[in-house]
Formats: sequence, structure tokens, C-alpha cells
Amino acid sequence: MKLDLTSIIKNEQFTALYHEMILGIEKESVRVTDKGTLAQTNHSSKFGNRNFHPYIQTDFAENQIELITPPCDSSQGVLDYLAAIHDVFYRTADERLWPASMPPEFTADQIAVAKLDCQEDVDYRNYLVKAYGKNKQIISGIHYNFEFSNRLIQFLYQDSQSAEKFEFQDFKNEIYLKLARQFTRYRYILTYFYGATPFAAKSFLNQDEKLDQPVRSIRNSNFGYVNHFSKATPLDSLDSYANHILEQVNSGALIHEKEYYGSVRLRGAKNLTELKKTGIQYVELRCFDLNPFEPYGISKKMLDFIHYFALFLIFKPEVGDCHQGDEMNCLVALEHPNAPTAYSEEGQELLYEMKRFYRNIKAEPELIELIDHYIRKFDHPEYTLASRMLERDLFKIATIHFERAFKRPFQLAGFTQMELSTQNILFDAIQKGLKVEVLDEADQFIRLSFEQHQELIKNGNMTAYDNYISALAMENKLVTKKLLSEVDIQVPNGYEFSQIDQALAIYPIIKNQAIVIKPKSTNYGLGISIFKQAIAYEDYKSALEFAFKEDQQVLIEEFVEGTEYRFYVLDGQVKAILLRIPANVQGDGIHTISELVAKKNDSIYRGTNHRFPLEKIQLGGIEKLMLKEQGLTIEAVPKNQEIVYLRENSNISTGGDSVDMTDQVDESYHRIAERVAKILKTVVTGVDIIIKDKDVPANESNYKIIEANQNPMMQMHIFPYQGQGRRVTKMMVDYLFPEID
Amino acid sequence: MKLDLTSIIKNEQFTALYHEMILGIEKESVRVTDKGTLAQTNHSSKFGNRNFHPYIQTDFAENQIELITPPCDSSQGVLDYLAAIHDVFYRTADERLWPASMPPEFTADQIAVAKLDCQEDVDYRNYLVKAYGKNKQIISGIHYNFEFSNRLIQFLYQDSQSAEKFEFQDFKNEIYLKLARQFTRYRYILTYFYGATPFAAKSFLNQDEKLDQPVRSIRNSNFGYVNHFSKATPLDSLDSYANHILEQVNSGALIHEKEYYGSVRLRGAKNLTELKKTGIQYVELRCFDLNPFEPYGISKKMLDFIHYFALFLIFKPEVGDCHQGDEMNCLVALEHPNAPTAYSEEGQELLYEMKRFYRNIKAEPELIELIDHYIRKFDHPEYTLASRMLERDLFKIATIHFERAFKRPFQLAGFTQMELSTQNILFDAIQKGLKVEVLDEADQFIRLSFEQHQELIKNGNMTAYDNYISALAMENKLVTKKLLSEVDIQVPNGYEFSQIDQALAIYPIIKNQAIVIKPKSTNYGLGISIFKQAIAYEDYKSALEFAFKEDQQVLIEEFVEGTEYRFYVLDGQVKAILLRIPANVQGDGIHTISELVAKKNDSIYRGTNHRFPLEKIQLGGIEKLMLKEQGLTIEAVPKNQEIVYLRENSNISTGGDSVDMTDQVDESYHRIAERVAKILKTVVTGVDIIIKDKDVPANESNYKIIEANQNPMMQMHIFPYQGQGRRVTKMMVDYLFPEID
Repeated sequence: MKLDLTSIIKNEQFTALYHEMILGIEKESVRVTDKGTLAQTNHSSKFGNRNFHPYIQTDFAENQIELITPPCDSSQGVLDYLAAIHDVFYRTADERLWPASMPPEFTADQIAVAKLDCQEDVDYRNYLVKAYGKNKQIISGIHYNFEFSNRLIQFLYQDSQSAEKFEFQDFKNEIYLKLARQFTRYRYILTYFYGATPFAAKSFLNQDEKLDQPVRSIRNSNFGYVNHFSKATPLDSLDSYANHILEQVNSGALIHEKEYYGSVRLRGAKNLTELKKTGIQYVELRCFDLNPFEPYGISKKMLDFIHYFALFLIFKPEVGDCHQGDEMNCLVALEHPNAPTAYSEEGQELLYEMKRFYRNIKAEPELIELIDHYIRKFDHPEYTLASRMLERDLFKIATIHFERAFKRPFQLAGFTQMELSTQNILFDAIQKGLKVEVLDEADQFIRLSFEQHQELIKNGNMTAYDNYISALAMENKLVTKKLLSEVDIQVPNGYEFSQIDQALAIYPIIKNQAIVIKPKSTNYGLGISIFKQAIAYEDYKSALEFAFKEDQQVLIEEFVEGTEYRFYVLDGQVKAILLRIPANVQGDGIHTISELVAKKNDSIYRGTNHRFPLEKIQLGGIEKLMLKEQGLTIEAVPKNQEIVYLRENSNISTGGDSVDMTDQVDESYHRIAERVAKILKTVVTGVDIIIKDKDVPANESNYKIIEANQNPMMQMHIFPYQGQGRRVTKMMVDYLFPEID
Repeated sequence: MKLDLTSIIKNEQFTALYHEMILGIEKESVRVTDKGTLAQTNHSSKFGNRNFHPYIQTDFAENQIELITPPCDSSQGVLDYLAAIHDVFYRTADERLWPASMPPEFTADQIAVAKLDCQEDVDYRNYLVKAYGKNKQIISGIHYNFEFSNRLIQFLYQDSQSAEKFEFQDFKNEIYLKLARQFTRYRYILTYFYGATPFAAKSFLNQDEKLDQPVRSIRNSNFGYVNHFSKATPLDSLDSYANHILEQVNSGALIHEKEYYGSVRLRGAKNLTELKKTGIQYVELRCFDLNPFEPYGISKKMLDFIHYFALFLIFKPEVGDCHQGDEMNCLVALEHPNAPTAYSEEGQELLYEMKRFYRNIKAEPELIELIDHYIRKFDHPEYTLASRMLERDLFKIATIHFERAFKRPFQLAGFTQMELSTQNILFDAIQKGLKVEVLDEADQFIRLSFEQHQELIKNGNMTAYDNYISALAMENKLVTKKLLSEVDIQVPNGYEFSQIDQALAIYPIIKNQAIVIKPKSTNYGLGISIFKQAIAYEDYKSALEFAFKEDQQVLIEEFVEGTEYRFYVLDGQVKAILLRIPANVQGDGIHTISELVAKKNDSIYRGTNHRFPLEKIQLGGIEKLMLKEQGLTIEAVPKNQEIVYLRENSNISTGGDSVDMTDQVDESYHRIAERVAKILKTVVTGVDIIIKDKDVPANESNYKIIEANQNPMMQMHIFPYQGQGRRVTKMMVDYLFPEID
């Protein structure tokens, strides 16, 4: 029964579905020193236990890592995970990765079998050393784990009338078997484009092996890492495929199923015996060399091309025995990188056919362009990876990739669209060996897991350990004040009003007092007015109207003299204290305020929308008004050393500066912040305390609690403008997963 | 050292502060049968244990209750609590209260000493029976516990230069001692206005007592409940006051301090010995008869007048011995209700002086009017309470007060400005004997407590038992779906989009499917479109634009056939199931839709803004459009029995009807809702399930979970339009306080 999907091609539903797939990448790399030689360090213990790390594992050798992405539903998703895992690797291990599949020059003693806890795994590696030699094992590559979406396969099944011929899982098996055969037949095309092991380190070749010239892919040639089978593994049915490999194991040609190094593996169960029962769920394409020019070893173009190449192949009619492709691939692999390939004509024709196929289904123009891009490479071997590698210094490239990870050390590559606190907690979780999932990107909703233990987290702070009513109590300034004041924690005295008339009636009482007028619930200083001396009735009225615009209830509180500090409390302990200074610039006698702001904003640490440790200073209405009140404009030139403030409020989100004070504030205030957290029954809170003198121990008249925040900003503690960073996201991860050392 | 506060009078700060006070009321009442005789039932066990009930206690006799408000900072606050406590009493005990201080005709055997657990309390009551006779003990009254606000006293202290002469607490003592003396001197004025015991039940008077005519206040006369002291209790200093009473106890004239029945008690400590040390915090004014015309025994006018009368008295210079007022009061008490009082001239003059005082401090006009109102009563004894009682049937009045509590049985009087679920939970908490506090009325934020155990609650549902992240997960439909679907709980299949272009691209897939398009996070059906058959591209696009107006992310889900039910889950158990029917009217062949809506809205159960079990049906744009689609207008006359729907969505908040189905849905669906709650780790949730056939047990293809609500509406379960109510608020209170039986 031959698979025929041609009826689908004109179906417009297919146009909406064709891009759906699930993809996961495994990428091996050897670690190298800052001289470019194989690293002799152990796998870093900072990654926690490699027995369970979902993303960062040791491969064959101790100095060879394997980076693993989870299955993603887009190539960009895969690349994002790869980027993130690389960021974590580089910044944690502080070591370079060799960018190519072929290792740098080495000696045998530089390769130690991975020091795994499991003796079986070590024995297996020692067997491989004997069977293939250490040198062959140190070669690295990329495995492309590919699955069509269930919705797409369901559609193909229904709309091709295959449902009349096959059970659903049989149909699925057919799809993947056809893909495996066609891939075997045509993979030489990918070797032509992507082959990227032109040279071998001298120590790589065995004594009987000799290479006279650069080639496209040593790794894809017979010099690579191949099984010594007499016969190609059949791909006509799942059973014959599985039985062939199992026979090799039984006969002793392989020590284990996993020693099967075919360029396609059929996957979907924990072993082949099981797979025969459950059927194929996805394929593992194993023939790809690392692309040394890409920071993460593979490009989006490459991920996409392979995907659409694979999809096309299941539609293309099969011709002849697929295993003729093995020899073709070997031959292409050993061609000179600058020479055209022997199969240029067939290859080019296939890509033209692929282009027609995608035009036919009205695929997006970007895909047509991508195919054109690859068609051109047949006439230009110099565009292929192997050719481009001929004159390049791989160690220099390794250094560029390495340094890239430190350019914005506060971010997590691949997740930069999320809030910085979430990026940081994802970094810390990956480092610790937790599984990380983004449940809703826009909502900063993630899940971390370790074995059966799962934790949901939103905005880095909100977890299952805080109770709902405490969070709501903190959101409500009135309730917070009541709960604190009744246990004699000092809060500002004041009034609350829901009608402006009632608030106006107390004018005689407050008119000579220093007061703050603020909406009951608001953030970032919106609607707040501060009066430090005698208040005119009209000003009082305006301030009330201003506040009532933000909330139906308004608080009038005594203005408290002193300095406001933010205490970050986690699990009953103050973990960080921050002084926030309103947005400001320091003059140099030369530049205008506008220029000074631009210069200050130019820092890589300043951005917008919580994606950076600090926010850019704005020059909007509020800032200009504040300047006007000081008799200044944005064109004024402040004196050398003069500090000009652009905001009354000190929020980081309005361009303020952050100064770590964790070790500089008297311990008695730590105890107060901790007591606030205890009274409010909260695990995480950011307590704002106004302190008269941070060096004088707290008493009932020298501090006031302004508020407790249920979702306190984390990034400002991690990357303060001045002072020591406090990695509160890591503390959170450690708090959530105490079972991991 | 005489207290002189006159310097204050012209101070405009005083104008802003003069109304500040703290007031608590204790109100005794006898319970009567539906025939108007003393109830012979026990104090209802539905109020929990009277040993700790903060609001509903037993007084002297088993059939005499004492209702106690907490201290409030306004007369309206006191009245609100009194109203609420009465509502709880009436609806729980289902008994009338006698509206007057003097009980209805009784026989001695109808009076049993309260059946308290504490033997000491019982012994004390038995002693009172011996000392005064049962009959005198059964008389009821109101105690007015009054305190000036701390801010006001601080102001008086500072701004009268009293700080030079007194320590603060001494000043406070002086204030309250002066108030006690002046009140003693002038209280006859209040007896004139408020005396409301003109007759005595025959059985009330002792054999030697005789009353020839109606009087103003038997209770305030020597026929009342008075100590048999030879000498008035001195009020010149706290020590002499306390020592005098303590001497009476030592000499055996009193068995206990609390037997002192003076019309003013100085309060602030648990006993007099302690009080001498700590000083006076407030006064208890004890001379007020129940106002039978008021549903709660006292009016706002009366509460306010007594307050401002008291404040005025601390400013008025003292003249002569205050105890001459005792005799004057006795005389006024025994005057005929229709006669002018002997002290009319002095009384009137005092009120004029009071009026001048408040005019001087620029008090609000309402207060001046209130004083005028009372001034007029001197010339019109027929306006006084005693006079008004002469011809009235007190049992009829008792019945009116009683029935009032059942007119809107879903509300809690005094708290009707809060959401209905909060009113209900306050009702249930008061009934159970919990202390209730409103921490923020606008935010529906309350606290319930029993001994040291406190629970914060918002919106009736949100408590410390739910964790923060579960609530946030439920708020996010995407996250909810992911968490449920991964454990094979059925949810609608679908897509999520953050860009309209991507959503448009799947048009070929969905164009022939039944789908729902909805914003990721919204309520009340806003932005939702449902397509049950082939969709035109333009309609699809419009629906997407409509949804994207409400949220940055939009879900497209399969439309699920069946009926949607709301499952209210608490503590792992389904407590109520509701079918919600979209806003509709049933025709009668006569009235227009507009008239039918008006008639349906006329029900006391329909209102607005969650203050009623059901919401009024609107006739706005959406309803008119819905009618138009059916070829109708609001002027159309539906046929008899014809149901016309005015809404697509079935939310109660848009006028829908609620039908209790708790016992009508197959148990298997209960288990599913409970499993949803368990997966989401939530204590409270409202799970919306679409069920194909409620009588067929759940399987993987006959139900879908639509969403889980972290703050599900409660009132619709308690008071459904049809079917049995489920008191979920009481279940919540019981869940929060399992220690109380």
C-alpha cells in the first residue's frame, strides 16, 4: 500500500496547517580552554547533578557536553531554547565551546570518558572506546528530532482518504517510514549545504586513514562515526527496521540499540521492542555537522529548510532503493568544498520541484525565497559551509560566540521578550537543572519542575507559597495599614475618604501639616501629591481632585521625614535592601540636561518595560514640569558635579537609580520588615520603609512602613546601579526546590 | 483645677474634628411569642454558644436578649450593626422582640433566670432576684457607650493649654468626669424627650408600688431598677467615684461592682481598682428606654443628639451640685406624658445655648436643625415618646419590626451597600457568633474572628486557604487549559493568537467548524462570538477584531454542544450546581417585551451591581440587537407561554435566570469538577462545564471544561430563580472555623 497524499495539495486547509511541527534539538560540543585546546576541567558542578539535568548533559567525554532543547512547536522556539541554554552554559562554566563538529587538535590523554555516576553508562563508553577509538567519539553533531503536528497528521489522514486504507497509527508509521527512506535517498543535498567538517585533527584519523584534501563532511563520510554493518538497515517497515537493529545487538555487532548510528532513527518509545507496539511518533535526523558560524551551532534558515524539505519528501513519489542515497551521501561528503557536487543536477531539480510544491499550496513567500536561496548554492559551492570554513580561525569564532553571552549579562538570550525577573529566574532554574516551561509568555507565567515536583510562577514572585488573601491585603493600602498598626508596627497616621467634600472638611486640621495625598491603590507615584509646608486651600483641592482621578478612595497621610528603602523579604528573611533615587543626571558644565539624559540612557543596563535592570529616563510632561519648578529646561547646562532631579518619585520604573544597601542598614530594620511579612502572612514581599537614620536602631518614632508590595520588582536588586547585586531570583528557585542541593 | 475649653471654640480645626467619637450600643429586649406574651423558649442554639457570642447574648432572664454593637466611629455605623444584628436575630430565632423597655403583661413563672453555663453568673442573677425581685429585672433598656476620638481629645488637650495643667490621662479623666456630672445634672432633658415607659405591666410593680397615671419613664423613676444607696455616688474625682462603689460592695450593699446601676458609669478597665490606675477611657450612659417606634430601639436622631449634647456639656460651665439633677430626673420621669415638663424653661434655655455653641463652631446645618427639632418638643409634649405611646398597640409594632426583617430575606440590613455575597457571609458569621469587621467596604474586604483565630475574606470567596498562583492560573484561560488538558481533563480544542493575521491564516481550517472566538481574559461574555455553522470570512474577521479589542490574546476554540453548568466547589466538594439561562421573558399574549421586562425586573430579587440575587434585565444595545436578529422589537407582544431571549450569554450579571441543579446532574460530573479543583490546587472555584446530557455519566467525549473561576458568584446559588438554595456562604464560614460546632 503506497502512501499517496497528492489529493491534499490543493486543499486550502493544508495551506493553513503545513507549517505545524514539533522539533527538538540535541547539540554536542567540546569544551575548550581560552587557548583553544580541549578543556581538562570536569563538567561544572554549578549545573547541579548531570544525572537529571534536562538541558545540559555530558556526552561521551567528560569535556563534551550535550545541550538539549525541549520539543517546541516552531524553529524560533527551538532556537530560543538553544540560545538560553548556551547563555546559561557560558556564564556558568565560563568556558568556550569549540564551534565545529571536528574537535581542535588533541592528544588521547586529553579525552576522558565522562565521569558519570551510573557504572553502566561508564562501561558503555569504555566499550565505545574499544570498538571505535576515543578519537572518533569526540566528534560532535546535531540531532534533529522532528515530528509533524498531530493536527497536521490527522488532517493528512482524513483528507487523503487514507483512513480507508490505514489505521491511524499505521498511517503515521507510513509517513515517517517514507520520510526516513526519502531522507536517506536525498540527504546528500543537506550534506552538500551543511557539511562542515572539512578537515580532521591529525589525532582524529586512525593510522590507516588518510585524507589528501579538505572535504565537505568527514563526519558524514566513512572516516566518521559509523556502524560496521554489512547491510543497510531496511526502512520498508517498522518491523524490519527494528528487527534488523535488534539482530545486530543479538549478534554482538552492537552492544546496545543506542549504538545504532544511522542517519535516521525512528523514535517514539523507550526501546525498539516497545516501538514496534506503539508505532513511530517522530524521527531523529542525525547527520548534521555543527555550523560553526552560528552562535548556537545551527541557524533558523537551516532549521526551517530541513523541516520543509522533510515535509516535501513525504509528498514526493519514491523512486528506486533509498539506500543508493548512502553511497551518494558518502561521495558528496568527500568532495572538495569548493567543487560543485556530482549530483548537482538531481539536487537542483529536486529543489525546483520542492519550490513548485510549496507554490502550489500557496506557502508563504519567505519559504519560496528560502528554497531559491538554497537552489543558488548548487552553482556556488563557495556558499556552502565547508567552503566557507576553509580559511577561518575556529578559535576566534569560539571566542566571539563566548563573548556574546556576556554582552548583556542580565538577560537570558531567547527569552528577552519576557520581563527581566522572569528571564533571570529561568536562567537560575536552567542552571540548577530544573525543567522550565513558559505557560503564557505575555502573562509571565512559567512552570519549573524537578521529577514530580512542579511549581507555577508568575512575574518571578507569585507562587503557591503565598496565599491569595495576603496578596489582596497588600494590594489594599488601607487593609495593610490596619493589619500592621493594630500590632504596633508604625504606619503613617492619616485619613481615608471616598468623597472629596469630606476630605475638604478636614482642611483646617491639615493645612499646616506636612502631608501626602494619594489614591488608595495605585503604582508608580500616579496621583500622589506631597505637601511639606503650609497648604493653600486651592492646592489642597487640586491635589485631592488629582488623587480621586486614580481611585474612588483617597488617603491623606502625614508626610514622614526620612529616606525610603525597599526591603525584599523572602521566606521570613530580608534578602536585599535598596535605596531608590529619583531619575537624575549629573552635570559636567558642558552638556545640556537633554544630552546628559541621552548619555545616561545609552547604558546597556537601561531600557523600557521591565526588560532591563533600569528604565530609561523619560523627558515627558512630568519631567519637564519638575525641571520648570527648579527654573530649568531640558536645554539647561548643569554645573560640573551638580545633580539635577527629573522626578519627585523614586521608582525605578520612572528612570530612578538603584543603590544596594543590604549591608548598610541597621539590623533592627531587617527585623521590622520580617515582622511585616509575618503579620501579612506572606512569603514574598517588598516592604517600603521610611527611616530617619539607617544607623540608629528602630524605635517607635524613627520609621514608618509605607507599604508592602505583593509583587516586588526583582531585577533592581540583582543589577543595582550601585553596590552589590543580590540574586533574589536564585534565592526564589532555591526556596521552591529545597530538595536539590 | 477647673477644665476650661472655651479657647477652642473659635478654632477652625475644632470645626473639622468636633464630630469625632466612638460609640457602642447595648440593647436589651425581651423575646415574645406571636401572641405577644413572654417567650418560653430557650435562647436559640442556632446562635452558637452564648458564652462567647460577641453580639447576641442572654441578659438577666432566659427570654431576655442583649444585642451588642462593636464600637463604631459614627452613629450610622452603630445603627448599621444594630440593624444587622436584629436581622440575624429575627431570621434565626423567628421570634418577635417586645419593642418597649417595659415588658408585656407577665406572670412570675414566665421569667426564668438565664440558663448560663457559668455558675457564678447564674448565682449572681439569683441574688438579683432576691434583692430586687424578678419583675424589676425583666425591664430592658439601652446603654450608650461613648468615647471622644483620641484625635479630638488630643486636640482639646493641646489647644486649650491644658497640657500645662494636666497630664494627658488626667485631662481625659477630667473631661469624662465633667461629662458625668453635667449629664447627671441635665439628663432629665433626655428623659423628657426619650422617656418611653409610660405604663407598667401590673405584674411589674411591687405590692407597695402604685402608679395612678401614665408617666414619662417608670424605668427612670424610683419604680425602676435602682440601687438602694443612701448617698449619691460622687463624681468629683475618679478615686472618689470608684471608692464609693467599692465601699458599697465591701459593706454588702452591692454584691458586685456591676450591680451599680447609676445612670453614668465611668469605664475603661475590667474593674474599678484597675480603672483608678489606667484612667477613664469612656462613659456608659444607662438611662435610655427603648424607643418602641424604631425598629432597632433607637433612632439616628437620638444617637446624634445624645452625642452632641454630651460634647456641648463638657464646654458648658458647671453650676452647683450635679446631683440635684437626680431629683429633677425623677420628677420628670413621673410627669404625665402629655404635660409640659416642670423644667421646660431651663431645658429650653440649655438647648438654645447648645445651638449657639454649635453655630459658633460652624457646625453643619443639619445639627442646628436637629437642635431646633428638640427645642420645639418643649412646647409640644405630644411629640415626646411617652406621649406618642399612649394609644399605641405595642404588639402590632413588634410585628411590624419583626416582619421588616423578612422583606428582603437575602440582604443583611446595615450592610446593603456591600455585595450580596459579603452580606450573606456577614450574616452567617454573626449568626455563628464570630466577630465581624469590615476592613474596606468598597473592596468587600472583611475579617472574621473567634478568639485568637482570624480570617480575612474578600468578595466572600478569597481567603488564606487559596494560594496566589492558583488564583492567577484560573484568571488565565490558557494556563487553566494547559494544566487540565495535560492530565486528560477535557477542554475545548483550539488555538491562541496574539496577532490577527495569524488568526486569519487559519480561516480555511475553521470555516466549516462550529467555533467560539473569545478574548483570553474577560468576563460577562464581552468580546465573545459564537459561530455554529459555515463562517463568512468577513464575519470571522469582524469577530476577531471584536475579541482583540478586549485582550491582546484571543482564543479560537471549538464550539461545544451541550448545556453549561456552574459547579461551585469548596474544600474539594461540589456544594452547588447551577444552570444559568440567558435573560428572557415569557409572553402572555397581551404585554409587550418592554412591559414583560419591567414586570420581571419588578421582583425584589432583581437589582443591580451584585447587591441582589439576580440582576435586572437591561434593554440596551445588545438586547435590542438580539431581538432584531429574531425579527422583534421591544414593542413586540410575544404569544402566551412563548419565551423570548434577550441575551446570547447566560451570565446572571446580564439578567440571566438561575436554576439550582445540584441534585439533578449525574454524580460523575461532580467528581470531574472536584478533580479540576484538585489539579488547580484551589479550595474555592466555580467550574463551568458544558455537558451533553446531564443524566449520562461523564466520558471523554461528552463534556468539556470551559473555565474555572477563582471568585465565583455566590449569591446565585443561595437564592436561585428556581430550585433549592444552597447557602455557600455558610459553608465557607463553617470551613474557615471548623473549631466551632
